[in-house]
Amino acid sequence: MQQRIVIVGGVAGGASAAAKARRMNDDVEIVMFEKGPYISYGNCGIPYYIGGDIPQREDLFLVTPETFWDRFRIDVRLHHEVLRIDRAQQEVFIQGPDGPFSMSYDRLILATGGVPLRPAIPGISLPGVHSLWTIPDGDAIMEMVQTLPAQAPVVIIGGGFIGLEMAEGLQQRGFSVTVVEKMAQVMPPLDPEIAAFAVQELQHHGVQVLLGDGVASFVETGGTVSGVRLESGRELPAALAIVSIGVRPETSLATAAGLEIGTTDGLSVDPQMRTSDPAIYAAGDMVESVHRCTETKMRIPLAGPANKQGRTAGHNAAVDLLHPPGDHQAFQGVLGTSIVRVFDLALAQTGLSQKTAELLGMDVQVSHTFSADHAGYYPGARTILLKLITERASGRLLGAQAVGASGADKRIDVLATAISAGLTVFDLEQLDLAYAPPFSAAKDPVNIAGMVAANVRRGQYRLLSKDGLQKHPADYSLLDVRSQEEWDAGHIPGAVHIPIDELRNRLADVPKGRPIVIYCAVGQRAYTAYRMLTQQGFSDLYSLSGGWQLWEGILDDPEYEVETH
Amino acid sequence: MQQRIVIVGGVAGGASAAAKARRMNDDVEIVMFEKGPYISYGNCGIPYYIGGDIPQREDLFLVTPETFWDRFRIDVRLHHEVLRIDRAQQEVFIQGPDGPFSMSYDRLILATGGVPLRPAIPGISLPGVHSLWTIPDGDAIMEMVQTLPAQAPVVIIGGGFIGLEMAEGLQQRGFSVTVVEKMAQVMPPLDPEIAAFAVQELQHHGVQVLLGDGVASFVETGGTVSGVRLESGRELPAALAIVSIGVRPETSLATAAGLEIGTTDGLSVDPQMRTSDPAIYAAGDMVESVHRCTETKMRIPLAGPANKQGRTAGHNAAVDLLHPPGDHQAFQGVLGTSIVRVFDLALAQTGLSQKTAELLGMDVQVSHTFSADHAGYYPGARTILLKLITERASGRLLGAQAVGASGADKRIDVLATAISAGLTVFDLEQLDLAYAPPFSAAKDPVNIAGMVAANVRRGQYRLLSKDGLQKHPADYSLLDVRSQEEWDAGHIPGAVHIPIDELRNRLADVPKGRPIVIYCAVGQRAYTAYRMLTQQGFSDLYSLSGGWQLWEGILDDPEYEVETH
Repeated sequence: MQQRIVIVGGVAGGASAAAKARRMNDDVEIVMFEKGPYISYGNCGIPYYIGGDIPQREDLFLVTPETFWDRFRIDVRLHHEVLRIDRAQQEVFIQGPDGPFSMSYDRLILATGGVPLRPAIPGISLPGVHSLWTIPDGDAIMEMVQTLPAQAPVVIIGGGFIGLEMAEGLQQRGFSVTVVEKMAQVMPPLDPEIAAFAVQELQHHGVQVLLGDGVASFVETGGTVSGVRLESGRELPAALAIVSIGVRPETSLATAAGLEIGTTDGLSVDPQMRTSDPAIYAAGDMVESVHRCTETKMRIPLAGPANKQGRTAGHNAAVDLLHPPGDHQAFQGVLGTSIVRVFDLALAQTGLSQKTAELLGMDVQVSHTFSADHAGYYPGARTILLKLITERASGRLLGAQAVGASGADKRIDVLATAISAGLTVFDLEQLDLAYAPPFSAAKDPVNIAGMVAANVRRGQYRLLSKDGLQKHPADYSLLDVRSQEEWDAGHIPGAVHIPIDELRNRLADVPKGRPIVIYCAVGQRAYTAYRMLTQQGFSDLYSLSGGWQLWEGILDDPEYEVETH
Repeated sequence: MQQRIVIVGGVAGGASAAAKARRMNDDVEIVMFEKGPYISYGNCGIPYYIGGDIPQREDLFLVTPETFWDRFRIDVRLHHEVLRIDRAQQEVFIQGPDGPFSMSYDRLILATGGVPLRPAIPGISLPGVHSLWTIPDGDAIMEMVQTLPAQAPVVIIGGGFIGLEMAEGLQQRGFSVTVVEKMAQVMPPLDPEIAAFAVQELQHHGVQVLLGDGVASFVETGGTVSGVRLESGRELPAALAIVSIGVRPETSLATAAGLEIGTTDGLSVDPQMRTSDPAIYAAGDMVESVHRCTETKMRIPLAGPANKQGRTAGHNAAVDLLHPPGDHQAFQGVLGTSIVRVFDLALAQTGLSQKTAELLGMDVQVSHTFSADHAGYYPGARTILLKLITERASGRLLGAQAVGASGADKRIDVLATAISAGLTVFDLEQLDLAYAPPFSAAKDPVNIAGMVAANVRRGQYRLLSKDGLQKHPADYSLLDVRSQEEWDAGHIPGAVHIPIDELRNRLADVPKGRPIVIYCAVGQRAYTAYRMLTQQGFSDLYSLSGGWQLWEGILDDPEYEVETH
């Protein structure tokens, strides 16, 4: 009798698993059950379809069930919900459009994904209160978008990926958008000083952002939502509300079958993507993954890992059924690398954030550098802010964050690769990256970030964070080494001003008695001043990490000076 | 007495060395001699200034001698040529504008750069025959550009970085440009099938490209150049000729001083950038470097290495003179990573090319993949062609090449990082890179390239190169699995056509008797066909690497199908 692989769920993880399984094993039957009306669609594109960047709804559909059958002999069943797994009998029970039935399996692959969180807030079920996860979710929002009047008030609850992408899209559509975020920052994977640039960019484009406030209830008028009442007591008008506060793993089927659930509430799998039942694999938003830096478990509901996990699960399930069985593949784990576009900015990160590393009790060194995405003398250069999080003892890179209008994605991908490979800041300063004036600088932003972090690690200078200075301002004297014009345009209160090029002749004016925090626009002149003062006998010096620009939240004010950190 | 560092040459290597030396040692005197009229300028920008992308000449100047003095107390002497080194006395002899003089040094840093090759071709000294390396070179060409009539014929000899950048710039200026290249391809660091895309792009924009032909002589009319006579006998009109056939290291000063010259004719240095004289360091285009993959010596006259080497040399010279001396830094070597923009395309590479690896007798596996720079469903996706060169025995990445209108630079930088870290194709398929629809795909082009290469290495399929098929066409049967429309638009002569979705029902039509080479547009459907046929009992199969698109040289004809290599 022909052996059979049954796959539950047909989007990223399930579709990847199905195609890979077929390529590895042409003899098995492969059946894929999808609860909804579509498989293999680009759900990451839905916010861009709603916002209008993606003009056609059909653009979101990647592969049809017909193609899956013709090309791969994968039997796709839409509108089929798997209700129960009988692990002892290796059988699943399905509710289809024509009634319930059962099917046996030799290998089962679960890819049931995630479900948007919908807390029991009064009024959350009102018409006009939506989540966004699937195509039908998108269709429902799109229908409202096409009927609401211009300037209609829209409230987005949650400032994560989907929340910010929807804020951009709906503001572009001409609505009056407010983002409400319970935490003190948007984009939880980022550290707060980096996430602050997203808030600025949203505000710059007319989006209202309310941080540190949650939803108490949704207000009804005439049977549909008309407003949002916040925990602070504030009330916002809302013709449409979108709840995007996260997703939980859809593990009800797995839980009912007694499969092991991890500490993160995701389904436990081993590196082969095998659950606690050796006949059952799983992939995608429902499983928990291992972080490559910390070996800790975490959930990363993102498309990249889902596809790679699906491919691994599909491969392994398929080779189990070869005669003899083939070798398994292993999924190497996640870094949580991610990126979001917020109007003209990209914000990206990989690996550990500073706050996560500190929560884990790790001793990390952080540094911030601003540098141009390509040679400053070639038109169109835009600034990238890079933050590196490194293990203090070893200099090993643990995490990185980037903000910029151009090229932030490139630097985060380079740094994600560096983290995967265990590179240190000493490696980063010497990476041999591609340079021509339209693409980069002779010292790429990654090199410059590496140089600064390596200089700190070598003891050539010390950095003080904005946060550290803000917490204990009285502990330090401040020395601003920028030009007169820069000083006049704004400076940190209490600072002494000595322009860098006058410093050698004005050593007597350098403040004494307390540790000195030197700053310039981004840290480059401060470094020069630091090195000179050190050698002139000054001690207990710091450079303010990220300088005036990070202090003030100014991204694109590049100094086109020789970069010789 | 104050100790002194003398630096010879004030552009990339010299200027970097000077600034770093000062940061490490505030007590030494630093004197920088520059033969020409400028220091620290963006020479990589000169072609873009001539082409008009960089509007102002002054944009090219990064730091003035005044800034070097005010900020760093670096004594810059323009128009000063160092004529001789007396190593025994640690003294240099200089010809300055006011006559000759000598100066002692405690540490000497040589950064004399390179000199454009000017072979003894009859007429090469005619007015109108130029090289491009320095600002005065650029000024001389710019003067001609501003006086020549529209459509004037320009001949560029040499199809390397500068030649192609100048071809673009001068064509944009409205001249009628011909590139003459002695080799059978442009861009020598690239493999020929990749470099071919640059030729197509040049031709598409109206540049004439003549490969495999050299210059026999320059033709004179009225005292200036009027034409170029080629070795083939062909004669081209030329109101301006630019000779850009490479640079030689400027080592005459070093050679005369008896410093050791390497086998590549570059100055020998150790990883600390120290020459055979421990009091003399060197950096930049004049030195030879160690390739990180092969440990062999090579010369890489590029700005990235020059800056990093200069920084290393400056650091080490400066800490030698501390009391006690500080720790040296080491330069980690080069990958030869580079990129060139040719009109709308970027061509980039890192590490070893296939041809270099084969010349070195290495057993390499190569693969070609075409994939979209970002999600196909998000507007504006453009195709990237990636080539990986890997060590067959280990799967370790040795080199990579990329062509594309968008994002080729990103992928080469990721792959350069991977090579530096010793990553294998198995690591590449699992890199956790940043995905959102405007920036990448759930499987980034680097992941896809890694998947294909890893599948080959695991024995899941075999690739045949275009070259291998062209050399022995009679040895193979060809199977085209594309759609009817694609087949009708063009196919490889002699191929049998069975669309992928009909293949399962038409196994009897698959050609027999000889090894079968399967192809589709880019290799994805061929892989599916290969796997199916293998399991249906067919053996001795190949997939044509890069498929029809590489065969025909078609870059941007993406298939927006699910990418499940």
